[in-house]
Amino acid sequence: MNLHEQIRTLGDNALEASRRLASMSTRRKNIALRAMAAAVDTQRDLIKAANDRDLQLGREAGLSAALLDRLSLTDKRLDGIIRGLRDVADLPDPVGRCLGRRRRPNGLVILKQRVPIGVIVIIYESRPNVTADAAALCVKTGNAVILRGGKDAYHSNQALAEALAAGSAEAGLPACAVQCVATTDRDAVRELVQMDDRVDLVIPRGGESLIRAVVEQARVPVIKHYKGVCHIYVDESADLDMALAIFENAKCQRPGVCNAVETLLVHVGIAPAFLPQLAERCRRQHVEVRADEAACAIVPDFKPAAEADWGAEYLDRIVALRVVPDTESAIAHINAYGSRHSDAILTRDEQAAKAFTREVDSAAVYVNASTRFTDGGEFGMGAEMGISTDKLHARGPMGLEELTTYKYVIQGNGQIRA
Amino acid sequence: MNLHEQIRTLGDNALEASRRLASMSTRRKNIALRAMAAAVDTQRDLIKAANDRDLQLGREAGLSAALLDRLSLTDKRLDGIIRGLRDVADLPDPVGRCLGRRRRPNGLVILKQRVPIGVIVIIYESRPNVTADAAALCVKTGNAVILRGGKDAYHSNQALAEALAAGSAEAGLPACAVQCVATTDRDAVRELVQMDDRVDLVIPRGGESLIRAVVEQARVPVIKHYKGVCHIYVDESADLDMALAIFENAKCQRPGVCNAVETLLVHVGIAPAFLPQLAERCRRQHVEVRADEAACAIVPDFKPAAEADWGAEYLDRIVALRVVPDTESAIAHINAYGSRHSDAILTRDEQAAKAFTREVDSAAVYVNASTRFTDGGEFGMGAEMGISTDKLHARGPMGLEELTTYKYVIQGNGQIRA
Repeated sequence: MNLHEQIRTLGDNALEASRRLASMSTRRKNIALRAMAAAVDTQRDLIKAANDRDLQLGREAGLSAALLDRLSLTDKRLDGIIRGLRDVADLPDPVGRCLGRRRRPNGLVILKQRVPIGVIVIIYESRPNVTADAAALCVKTGNAVILRGGKDAYHSNQALAEALAAGSAEAGLPACAVQCVATTDRDAVRELVQMDDRVDLVIPRGGESLIRAVVEQARVPVIKHYKGVCHIYVDESADLDMALAIFENAKCQRPGVCNAVETLLVHVGIAPAFLPQLAERCRRQHVEVRADEAACAIVPDFKPAAEADWGAEYLDRIVALRVVPDTESAIAHINAYGSRHSDAILTRDEQAAKAFTREVDSAAVYVNASTRFTDGGEFGMGAEMGISTDKLHARGPMGLEELTTYKYVIQGNGQIRA
Repeated sequence: MNLHEQIRTLGDNALEASRRLASMSTRRKNIALRAMAAAVDTQRDLIKAANDRDLQLGREAGLSAALLDRLSLTDKRLDGIIRGLRDVADLPDPVGRCLGRRRRPNGLVILKQRVPIGVIVIIYESRPNVTADAAALCVKTGNAVILRGGKDAYHSNQALAEALAAGSAEAGLPACAVQCVATTDRDAVRELVQMDDRVDLVIPRGGESLIRAVVEQARVPVIKHYKGVCHIYVDESADLDMALAIFENAKCQRPGVCNAVETLLVHVGIAPAFLPQLAERCRRQHVEVRADEAACAIVPDFKPAAEADWGAEYLDRIVALRVVPDTESAIAHINAYGSRHSDAILTRDEQAAKAFTREVDSAAVYVNASTRFTDGGEFGMGAEMGISTDKLHARGPMGLEELTTYKYVIQGNGQIRA
């Protein structure tokens, strides 16, 4: 079987499985999720052996210590995966929920009902825990999933997926509800994302280059999780202690994540008071500040920013800093350089807050809070598949509801159209 | 200015307009829609002169009478366009509506709010009334729109768009809220659908080949309005008089539209009683029946169906007919050959209805009613942009709500993440 046939067979199996999954009861799906958790636990040694093989190959290939760490499946991480599967079982099932009901004058009753999307392809890098997370969210929402992990985690992903498939099949779910692509051939991605007669949605998880490559090739709809270039705008009326605390949290609590702040915009009227305090805080927290001329004039220690600093996603203890004349300029900067992820205004001025939340074109717009809250768990959605930077279908944290679509079910008693 | 620059300028203008449109009040948008209606009325002679020019060119190019008729802007049709614009003004505005509100334990208040999508490109053929309909729906939902109509209606579309833009600008909307591509160069479509830094959504309206071409080229998300291969399944327990009436309505009331029925599936147990009556009804209505062997054995007059008849969109007084052993086979046939548009079961058996509505993977699934009801107006949604056969973002009739997305607005008082 060549690659094309191999991928189309995965697609056929997934499509077939998705038809059956759509009719599965919540109870059955939850039993399956718990059986998947149990299977990961039971096959722990097999999974760790496969992971050792990946780690060995990774060391031979000269992977960095950070990448090897991300790749590593310790017992603690496997416990986390098992707990994650059980947590998803405990979440409410969106499938079948009624989104609207209309009774028309002719007596037709039109129900709008949540249903699974169908077949979802997840393309991801490094971290093998995505294998389990993605499988869990898809099973819960009655979607068949085809997983395509990174080359570095190939054996770990295969072993994990086998355990997950075994668990779900044991609970009576279709055998192909969860499938893993059994090749590291790069062309498999192209085949997957062009299979628009079998696949309903592609979600790429990883660096920007991976996502761009998927978008370039895809004929199937893609929901994109691009970078997070988050901004905090400190308005003239901001509480400066609050601003320092929120900035520090958004920059330093976990600098390597997508909802960490990357650019700070400061109102010109408050810059003389705020920037020296900010400089002190950044020194203490080892944050490098790359500032525009106006800011450097107030704090000569700041490193001058280059044009490339606006819109940069550092994922590091670096922040770009710009002094702006007013809220409109802050909004314009964010809409020009941001990534439509999460942006905050710190202000005591209701009008400024209103303009900011209305005009900033991002998934999450904050007033007086840290951007770090953009997260399915923090939003009270339970688990999440990631943070969509798209505007269609799913925006911001993508939880269970965002993995469903709807259909109209129309009940009549012989109505015909006049 | 070359084509690439010309299209990017349209994109820049639309993006700029969309930022301002997002903040426009419902009242202002409705004033604009009424001003657009008035402008079309005032510029009626200009529009008709432009239309005459298209009709003249069309006659010279040998367009069919049917195409010339579709192209023609009579006073009656202009009245319809004007009425349509006013009707959209009267519809409720979805923008700003609250889709959910959560207060988190840390005091954060998370609002999920409807907002415009941003910049929408509509690519369509022939009928110039789409120019006004699409502009109206986009203005109402605060989206900037770039219109790209068919070559045959080029002058009509330009004249209409000029009137619409004049009306909307007069009411204080951004000048580039409604723009029309001022070239018939085919490469303009490619430029438009690849401009993913300025355009949020592409909606192609027209034949399957147009939509396929857009999907192949697009880097921007596309919501597809593919064909309607609608099915009616007459179950063993169906009321035969109802079945005949619904079939006749779904096939004959307007055979050329996407929600007309194309294939009839009949339960084997009821075929001997139903098919002769069906044959008689089809004879009377001049409907050609292309049937499988089992049906031809009962009614030898039926023309034998070929494999290509399953899944065919005739848009004509032709129907494919297949005898099936049970509801499951009917569902499998629909999922294999249908176009995920509208499909109906006619039955008195609740279990069969339940299985059918659950397992048929279509936007609208009917029990005992004609497929002809799949329509924004009939569903009580007001105006519509078309019927999406996609599963993401918008499924089935695409009304005002489907032309919006959402953002999260988070109100805090200094919260940082632990």
